[in-house]
Amino acid sequence: MKFRRSGRLVDMTEYLLRHPHRSVSLSFFSEKYGAAKSSISEDIGIVKEVFEAKGIGKLATSAGVSGGVRFVPTIHDQEAVQAVENVCESLKDSSRILPGGYLYMMDIVGDPQQMQQLGRIFASHYRKAGVDVVMTMATKGIPLAYAVASHLNTPVTIARHEQRVTEGSIVSINYVSGSSQRIQTMSLSKRSLKPGSNVLIIDDFMKAGGTIRGMMDLTEEFQSTVVGAGVLMEAVHDKEKLVDNYVSLTKLSGVDEKDKKIHVEKGNMFS
Amino acid sequence: MKFRRSGRLVDMTEYLLRHPHRSVSLSFFSEKYGAAKSSISEDIGIVKEVFEAKGIGKLATSAGVSGGVRFVPTIHDQEAVQAVENVCESLKDSSRILPGGYLYMMDIVGDPQQMQQLGRIFASHYRKAGVDVVMTMATKGIPLAYAVASHLNTPVTIARHEQRVTEGSIVSINYVSGSSQRIQTMSLSKRSLKPGSNVLIIDDFMKAGGTIRGMMDLTEEFQSTVVGAGVLMEAVHDKEKLVDNYVSLTKLSGVDEKDKKIHVEKGNMFS
Repeated sequence: MKFRRSGRLVDMTEYLLRHPHRSVSLSFFSEKYGAAKSSISEDIGIVKEVFEAKGIGKLATSAGVSGGVRFVPTIHDQEAVQAVENVCESLKDSSRILPGGYLYMMDIVGDPQQMQQLGRIFASHYRKAGVDVVMTMATKGIPLAYAVASHLNTPVTIARHEQRVTEGSIVSINYVSGSSQRIQTMSLSKRSLKPGSNVLIIDDFMKAGGTIRGMMDLTEEFQSTVVGAGVLMEAVHDKEKLVDNYVSLTKLSGVDEKDKKIHVEKGNMFS
Repeated sequence: MKFRRSGRLVDMTEYLLRHPHRSVSLSFFSEKYGAAKSSISEDIGIVKEVFEAKGIGKLATSAGVSGGVRFVPTIHDQEAVQAVENVCESLKDSSRILPGGYLYMMDIVGDPQQMQQLGRIFASHYRKAGVDVVMTMATKGIPLAYAVASHLNTPVTIARHEQRVTEGSIVSINYVSGSSQRIQTMSLSKRSLKPGSNVLIIDDFMKAGGTIRGMMDLTEEFQSTVVGAGVLMEAVHDKEKLVDNYVSLTKLSGVDEKDKKIHVEKGNMFS
């Protein structure tokens, strides 16, 4: 389909946004639009300028015969801070407090656009980590994990408490839930993670870090490497956490059931 | 931030793609770019032409003082057919066959970009249904449900078998799993679905339709209305299905464990 420059810019923008972290050759666009590579090169220059000015992402270009472009989603620091401060504000709503001091968070986790935005923060943070696959634990980590993976252009692998007949052979480990000190089982389908993969662990919530620790051990069972761990919310925990290297977007320092106060602030990603 | 037309087109395209099913006023863009409404109107005309030619979506424009634009994601029929045929091809891989005639599908469900594309097919199909919320059942329906909801700009509500302390008060129903004839329980957090909502049910797999039927009954308990039901795969079932109005992307007519053959074709959305 032939477009003039203005039309090409619209289509090229859409194409790049839908194909993050993938090399696209100049020839591909040149053939797609029936335009000279020099024109395509100029187009890419314009897209790059806007994407970088607006913090949408970086366009990494390579020159030469096999020259091309790769869209790497990022987010401006101030936009990330703003997004997380909005989440913190929303989390302070006292009507979230459930019996036992738990917090209702399904409205946040249940908002795909908000998950996409928070996922972009992690995707930007880990953009150079060479992530091959995002791992999470069923079920509440799934939306954020998919959001991160969609920006990193990787698959998602889901660990579960229970076994499923539809998973084929699985690898199971026992782990100690750090906060309740209970022994639990975590399984991962054997064919859902290739040996030698770089794994980014994403979850919704972390207290002592037992679940994250479990996913790290599971990754090792697959001869793979953990390149990072990110959580939507970490909760302050009396004892030492079972995990050192993790990044949190928000930090819950306390839920006061009597005074109906929730103390939440930006997580360690911003400190 | 001031851009020339070419820069505006890039930024406007990104903005519209990230805000589907939302009215954006000409004034908003006019202020955002420091450009006259007449120029913005021309920009929108260019974006509209490309989006409609490429089947990215429709730009519904309204005139007048409160004039604006709304991006409605769609997909060309031939692109939808191609995407589903690719899934069918991939599903025919005999190494998917698990003991009991089950199929391994996590590589498909675990691919965020593929889920986004299949979600776009449902979002396009139900774009005029006035969907307020997408409902699914934990856990394998979640990725597709989020993909659909992100294109429709709605929240997701997740029904579960087990109860969670983090859900607050819940509504539970019993339902009969159509294929196994077992009585099971399905719960939904009370505050995750407002009464009077239009609900689109999305799930990964349907055989007799018991789970979908359960979600329909659950929707009724919330004084809400089911406006549609879509599944990634339906399996042929000897007896009458428990659900009439549903749309499937693929249809599994049989798994031959002995000959290692999987019979799968396009679903009823394409017939």
